[in-house]
Amino acid sequence: MPDATRYHMTPDEFRVHGHALVDWIARYWERVEEYPVLSTVEPGRIRDQLPATAPDEGEPFDRMMADVRRIILPGITHWQSPSFFGFFPANVSGPSVLGELLSAGLGVQGMLWATSPACTELETHVLDWLVDMLDLPGKFKSTTAGGGVIQDTASSATLCALLAARERASGSQANQAGARRSLIVYTSSQAHSSVEKAVMIAGIGRDNLRLIETDEHYAMRPDALDTAVERDRRAGLAPCFVSATVGTTSSNAIDPLGPIGAICQRYGLWLHVDAAMSGTAALCPEFRFIHDGLEHADSYCFNPHKWMFTNFDCDCFWVADRAVLIRSLSVMREYLDNEPTRSGAVFDYRDWHVPLGRRFRALKLWFVIRHYGVKGLQHHVREHVRLAQEFAGWVEADDRLELVVKPPLNLVCFRHRDGDDATRALLDGLNATGKLYMTHTKLDDRFTIRFSVGGTLTERRHVEQAWELIRAACEQSP
Amino acid sequence: MPDATRYHMTPDEFRVHGHALVDWIARYWERVEEYPVLSTVEPGRIRDQLPATAPDEGEPFDRMMADVRRIILPGITHWQSPSFFGFFPANVSGPSVLGELLSAGLGVQGMLWATSPACTELETHVLDWLVDMLDLPGKFKSTTAGGGVIQDTASSATLCALLAARERASGSQANQAGARRSLIVYTSSQAHSSVEKAVMIAGIGRDNLRLIETDEHYAMRPDALDTAVERDRRAGLAPCFVSATVGTTSSNAIDPLGPIGAICQRYGLWLHVDAAMSGTAALCPEFRFIHDGLEHADSYCFNPHKWMFTNFDCDCFWVADRAVLIRSLSVMREYLDNEPTRSGAVFDYRDWHVPLGRRFRALKLWFVIRHYGVKGLQHHVREHVRLAQEFAGWVEADDRLELVVKPPLNLVCFRHRDGDDATRALLDGLNATGKLYMTHTKLDDRFTIRFSVGGTLTERRHVEQAWELIRAACEQSP
Repeated sequence: MPDATRYHMTPDEFRVHGHALVDWIARYWERVEEYPVLSTVEPGRIRDQLPATAPDEGEPFDRMMADVRRIILPGITHWQSPSFFGFFPANVSGPSVLGELLSAGLGVQGMLWATSPACTELETHVLDWLVDMLDLPGKFKSTTAGGGVIQDTASSATLCALLAARERASGSQANQAGARRSLIVYTSSQAHSSVEKAVMIAGIGRDNLRLIETDEHYAMRPDALDTAVERDRRAGLAPCFVSATVGTTSSNAIDPLGPIGAICQRYGLWLHVDAAMSGTAALCPEFRFIHDGLEHADSYCFNPHKWMFTNFDCDCFWVADRAVLIRSLSVMREYLDNEPTRSGAVFDYRDWHVPLGRRFRALKLWFVIRHYGVKGLQHHVREHVRLAQEFAGWVEADDRLELVVKPPLNLVCFRHRDGDDATRALLDGLNATGKLYMTHTKLDDRFTIRFSVGGTLTERRHVEQAWELIRAACEQSP
Repeated sequence: MPDATRYHMTPDEFRVHGHALVDWIARYWERVEEYPVLSTVEPGRIRDQLPATAPDEGEPFDRMMADVRRIILPGITHWQSPSFFGFFPANVSGPSVLGELLSAGLGVQGMLWATSPACTELETHVLDWLVDMLDLPGKFKSTTAGGGVIQDTASSATLCALLAARERASGSQANQAGARRSLIVYTSSQAHSSVEKAVMIAGIGRDNLRLIETDEHYAMRPDALDTAVERDRRAGLAPCFVSATVGTTSSNAIDPLGPIGAICQRYGLWLHVDAAMSGTAALCPEFRFIHDGLEHADSYCFNPHKWMFTNFDCDCFWVADRAVLIRSLSVMREYLDNEPTRSGAVFDYRDWHVPLGRRFRALKLWFVIRHYGVKGLQHHVREHVRLAQEFAGWVEADDRLELVVKPPLNLVCFRHRDGDDATRALLDGLNATGKLYMTHTKLDDRFTIRFSVGGTLTERRHVEQAWELIRAACEQSP
């Protein structure tokens, strides 16, 4: 073998280790429900088991996998466990993982159309498919003035939406002269931390972020938004951007897009809609009420990497006016110049987000959609919602527990009627068993357990088992 | 089989398709040099072959792979081809792809330490390893006040460095009140587009970006930097941030970090060092001259996803003062609250970059370092530099061509002596053969071909063949 390849893993070695790893992953999925869901290692425990310096000589692959089993797995919180009901689902699937593998193997860069045309065109195409699949407004399609792009996360999508809004509101002066301090951003007090983070990053400042109060369902109050915008206008400030949430992180509240959109139209504000987890529900016609009023939106995102069987990262982000987004993020350099770009006939996705480089993420999304088909995806979404609703019914019927809100979809929020200490003790005790994992939030300043259903492997029996554990823990509590 | 899993790919199906895909990738690597390097499809050609709507019913995996072969591959520019000499390498390797596969299969979220401790601790640990491997300043280690984190790209790392600098320069007021318009950013006229993009995103504005002139090697002139900073200070502005480049994109120029660092110290400016491609060279002691003066830096990044056999994305980013970085990006919410975070004993990497969610990217980096060992990595870096230097010698000895700069490492810039038209014709003609791929830049406003060596599969014979093609094309040109 020539010198130059002496240290590389050969294709034949890759075949051997690759097959073994594929089997390892399949076995992991088969057995994942046997692991304690929440890792219980102490801080520093993983690092303590690792050598202080990198090896000078290469090591056999089997030794790495032995360390994965021995050192890494005990430090894993098993997001793929069917009894993981924390945060939000991050449900992976076979076709998605294979799409990620293919993307890694091809190792192409999609920063420009020209650097791998298929990487760009498949992405544009699949995002057009999704506009139909979720029944989103047609203006988000690439065949109009809009278009979609895959971002890593909804945080980045929200940032890009804000930058485009800043660009539009500043008459293209923001990139040149810097952010005006008078731009004002609105979101609900229940909105995700990413809105505040975007406001910080974009140089607008938290002082210019208005957290609009919410109604009894924790959804943004349009009248409060209207009042706030009016107040800021009278004060000579420049209302610019509203981020509405379809399915808040805490309680899955759905902001009323119709009335909010009408306010945005009246005052010329950019409306961004963050449907990170819940957008997937719109695959099913009966859940499309969550998008009522979406025709007012300038931009929209949801995360197939949460609830659509696509491994992280994969946030789908659409804008109605791609020109303003591109203007807000484009920087040209000679080394990026090429004929297709000059022709204007292609999308260069580097101008649609923060990073320059990008991998071929559309492959996994394409594989997932084709493997399941729209019907298969709908089936599983319906099943998750049905399980969550059934669970909510059990909570409601139990006189020791309180259902905090009627769950619109797949997230159930509940408390112990004996107060915060009892609720916290219930949660901590259950999580410590390792038999399930739930997380918490505060609603009306009261400690609240979140039960989120959406795992690929989650079946009725896992939800039943979770309920049985919760019920039993309530029995035992003093 | 229960209803709930009816549409999922079963573990056994995953085994079958996974084995086949592993074999497919191994075969792709074995045959990749037979493909035309640059895709020649016309805009729209890929999309034309795809159905207008998503399938309602699921499809067998084999049909997807058939479409990959038939539709996708002709639209791929083969970055893994041994005759890919364009842009920069994006060299993947077996251990890296397997690490990515394992990460996808585990499907964990690393946003907080608590959401999978191993995901955070392995990352911190491997980035500490790399401080030693590249002989970076000890202040970047997590065991001091510093620390490292994996970002998607150097663009994002530069943005985060700028945000931290903005935070420090504003006495923590930027996030609250918005970016001050008087903050001034410096980089060389040869620096990457990402600096300008970061300045736009952070709301500082291009008006406040100074592109410092370069010397005959296209490296930043410290005297010009000094003059610019002085001028801005006298004008009542607030010099804040310098981004120096170790290995510019156009010509691999190395900014002199010592003198630049001294200026930064004198005026209290944040020094960020972007060594995206070239940082890898510092694995070899004989190339560590590129980092002379790095002890002055507040932050530093390089991309294992370029030249260190790690598939995209994997940018390693270090700061000397992690507290200020975290302060610039941290937003707390109840649903993120947990005991380890409150204890202060752990890193929550969500506060070290733009996104909230993050995947387990340290696995692939760990696998690569352990598979090759430091010696193996050094061997291949040396080989790439040796091949590029040899190629540069051939160019220099040819009287039809001009070597534009003496290449410090693995990137060779050259032109046809007959001028821009001849150089462009040479490049276009060669790329059209599909037998190799090079890209271009402009240096001193003259069209220049870049020949970048660093592919995993690139051996001496591929560089020789490229030279033979170039030589023959020069013969044929009028």
